[in-house]
Amino acid sequence: MADQITKKEENYSQWYNDLVVKADLAEQSAVRGCMVIKPYGYAIWEKMQRALDDMFKKTGVQNAYFPLFIPKSFFSREAEHVAGFAKECAVVTHHRLMNDPDGKGVIVDPSAKLEEELIVRPTSETIIWSTYKNWIKSWRDLPLLCNQWCNVVRWEMRTRLFLRTSEFLWQEGHTAHATAEEAEAKAKEMVGVYADFARNWLAMPVIVGHKSPNERFAGALDTLTIEAMMQDGKALQAGTSHFLGQNFAKSFDVQFADKDGQLKYVWATSWGVSTRLMGALVMAHGDNNGLVLPPKIAPIQVVMVPIFKTEEEHSAILEKMNNLKADLEDKGVSVKIDDRDTLRPGFKFAEWELKGVPVRLAIGPRDLQNGTVEVHRRDTLEKETVSLDSLVPSIEVLLEAIQKNIYQKAFDFRQAHVEKCDSWDEFKEKIQTGKFLLCHWDGTTETEQAIKDETKATIRCIPVDSFVCEEEGKCIYTGKPSHRRVVFAISY
Amino acid sequence: MADQITKKEENYSQWYNDLVVKADLAEQSAVRGCMVIKPYGYAIWEKMQRALDDMFKKTGVQNAYFPLFIPKSFFSREAEHVAGFAKECAVVTHHRLMNDPDGKGVIVDPSAKLEEELIVRPTSETIIWSTYKNWIKSWRDLPLLCNQWCNVVRWEMRTRLFLRTSEFLWQEGHTAHATAEEAEAKAKEMVGVYADFARNWLAMPVIVGHKSPNERFAGALDTLTIEAMMQDGKALQAGTSHFLGQNFAKSFDVQFADKDGQLKYVWATSWGVSTRLMGALVMAHGDNNGLVLPPKIAPIQVVMVPIFKTEEEHSAILEKMNNLKADLEDKGVSVKIDDRDTLRPGFKFAEWELKGVPVRLAIGPRDLQNGTVEVHRRDTLEKETVSLDSLVPSIEVLLEAIQKNIYQKAFDFRQAHVEKCDSWDEFKEKIQTGKFLLCHWDGTTETEQAIKDETKATIRCIPVDSFVCEEEGKCIYTGKPSHRRVVFAISY
Repeated sequence: MADQITKKEENYSQWYNDLVVKADLAEQSAVRGCMVIKPYGYAIWEKMQRALDDMFKKTGVQNAYFPLFIPKSFFSREAEHVAGFAKECAVVTHHRLMNDPDGKGVIVDPSAKLEEELIVRPTSETIIWSTYKNWIKSWRDLPLLCNQWCNVVRWEMRTRLFLRTSEFLWQEGHTAHATAEEAEAKAKEMVGVYADFARNWLAMPVIVGHKSPNERFAGALDTLTIEAMMQDGKALQAGTSHFLGQNFAKSFDVQFADKDGQLKYVWATSWGVSTRLMGALVMAHGDNNGLVLPPKIAPIQVVMVPIFKTEEEHSAILEKMNNLKADLEDKGVSVKIDDRDTLRPGFKFAEWELKGVPVRLAIGPRDLQNGTVEVHRRDTLEKETVSLDSLVPSIEVLLEAIQKNIYQKAFDFRQAHVEKCDSWDEFKEKIQTGKFLLCHWDGTTETEQAIKDETKATIRCIPVDSFVCEEEGKCIYTGKPSHRRVVFAISY
Repeated sequence: MADQITKKEENYSQWYNDLVVKADLAEQSAVRGCMVIKPYGYAIWEKMQRALDDMFKKTGVQNAYFPLFIPKSFFSREAEHVAGFAKECAVVTHHRLMNDPDGKGVIVDPSAKLEEELIVRPTSETIIWSTYKNWIKSWRDLPLLCNQWCNVVRWEMRTRLFLRTSEFLWQEGHTAHATAEEAEAKAKEMVGVYADFARNWLAMPVIVGHKSPNERFAGALDTLTIEAMMQDGKALQAGTSHFLGQNFAKSFDVQFADKDGQLKYVWATSWGVSTRLMGALVMAHGDNNGLVLPPKIAPIQVVMVPIFKTEEEHSAILEKMNNLKADLEDKGVSVKIDDRDTLRPGFKFAEWELKGVPVRLAIGPRDLQNGTVEVHRRDTLEKETVSLDSLVPSIEVLLEAIQKNIYQKAFDFRQAHVEKCDSWDEFKEKIQTGKFLLCHWDGTTETEQAIKDETKATIRCIPVDSFVCEEEGKCIYTGKPSHRRVVFAISY
């Protein structure tokens, strides 16, 4: 099975695509740029959703649902916003098909043209703020904290499964506050939720920071981000949280009567993560045998493969496995017994390695005699023989160890590929070898753009954690004074 | 609060709309025919989703996700299917906006016209079967059991919140099988899941049956349905499960190599329920004070309202309530303490009645002294005083009793509004008074259509449970021989 996967060292991009497709996560659909998320991939997405949703709700956020379509006129009310999204949106212009008078199937009915075109949401700030106008009258209605899980469409020209698709699934939170301070605190809180989730569930050591003005969300005053390093040393933006100021409140005239009786515009945040996280998960931890899933996000945590010759052995092993399965499930471990009768154990081993299942148990006739199980861990590919009696507690400990080890490995990898850089010549060379470079920057958009034009590298973030960046220095490109380093990298 | 709601007896339709809007379930959006599902409404939908999803997974179904867009050419491959949906679909024709050269905002960029128009999915059989073609090669790949939770769009001309909206949320299951028998059994199994859910969670005594050919899904050989009676005696189709035969397999050329080595077309089912269930829930149980939610589907099962004069009383009562809340939550009961300081208790009582919370607890200073709580149940509006010591077990028992009582009430209502009818004159009169009539029918589409034209009544289903219908008789319209009665009603 692993021999069907391109080696990571040979062609990283093809390796990624092979993993996504061959591990049954997703595939291209017949519709340009849109993917099909297959059951195994969707099961991982569901685990992500459940974990994030619980975390959101603990912060007081409620789910709701807003329309898929946005009237064109709404879309254009916030100037920067429309500039950011107008070039890549799907436009609905008609509401009916009819039989082709020439008898060639169906055509769009020209008489069913919409008065105003509808945009398939690329993000929902405009439709949501037009709704919030009716929900917010007084300070008592604030804060208003809504999230929705939905699909969005951005008409991307070059697409890659999970990383950049025309349609993708995401959640978008939209909050309304009485003060700027409260909104900024919420934006910070939510990027903190994302970082917590990325680190503790996805085992990705992300860096939290501010985006430079160049890389901000269209319509935001500040964008916070979590940035992850992939195994080719490139950066992947894995989630963002925006402080929107009063831009959308003003565009949609959302004011509230404050305690002092004054009418004031509302302050806003929005924040989102998407199925892009699936791509990050694959690229952050996979190896040449396939996916490596952190146990907390794996739909199947333990797979069991029986090894037998006689039907007697088969049924004795299966009975044992069913008992173990019940015991493990009691402890909250998800288990699958792979009892397919048309496949050899070696094939099954390779398939579950490809699918990244954290732990594999094999029981053969000799194990049955000896009261043992062969335990294989996916992250290190190591095997050991464990006594049946102590299996359940060992598995619990092992799953935790695997979760930690996957994180530590990614953390060590990142630490080995981050360095301070103070020379422009070095920068140009090193940035192409897959590194995050911590550099001084003069704070101007022009400099950032010039660096991007010459090297394709961008400022991934101005870190607020992970590295100590506050120090005096000189901009790596212009030599002008700088008070802190920022993270440069080439990104997905 | 109740005085803001139109009386059910005065204007049933307005009463329904008042409940949906004033209980904060949903509202019309700025986009024609599309609704906003508000947090309280969405919380109910989430409970429905969770319960159904667990039930689906127990039958072996897995979730997946397929594209929002369907190429026009796919859509037209199955002739009946396109005829059924072509007249009400949203069509994407362009993928970019541009600045209006006249400076008036943004317009559709004429140079960004799609080569082939895309239809926003009204249902996904076509895109899914085009995908299944690649997934199904051999009998080993069958059965294939996928479901997706998503949004769909049907361009309805007359819309009503939840009952008929241009965009709605639903789940659609799509299964592929090696034999007709297996597919038919699956379609039956899934309508059984729906009936179980409707009866035991939504407390709706639905009737399971087959649709007449007239009312079948576009492209199905058989449609099974669950039909519920609303409080105006009208029928509401609450979920359907279709046996699709080989229609889609043939349209998309999906064949498999069977055990005998022969290539055969695959057999299909599809089945779905939607946010329409929200409307059914409101209409089946609501009263003139607002919603009446069955406890199993209520986002808040118990609300507590403190009654006090002094701050000392306030904090003593709150402490007691927090303890009770923790104890109840330990038992899996969801609890809210309504401690808003700007509203009077009477206002809060009315608001939670409007929102249908099954149980309300009030504690005042005298209760504190006596060690009691006032317990109010929403379904009967009865109050009783309960000792604090025995409160937790009483609440558990009470929630079960309320769930049963709501079902029983709906069941009794239905039984009182169903009757056999064998006279066409009686039929015409009674069907207008809000009844389900069990009548003989000659089995022809012409007769069903003639009855519909004269009375607006349709065959809701040919029951497979709820009523004994097998008996010889004569068609109520034509007098021709008939072997069983069917359910006629006027429907939503």
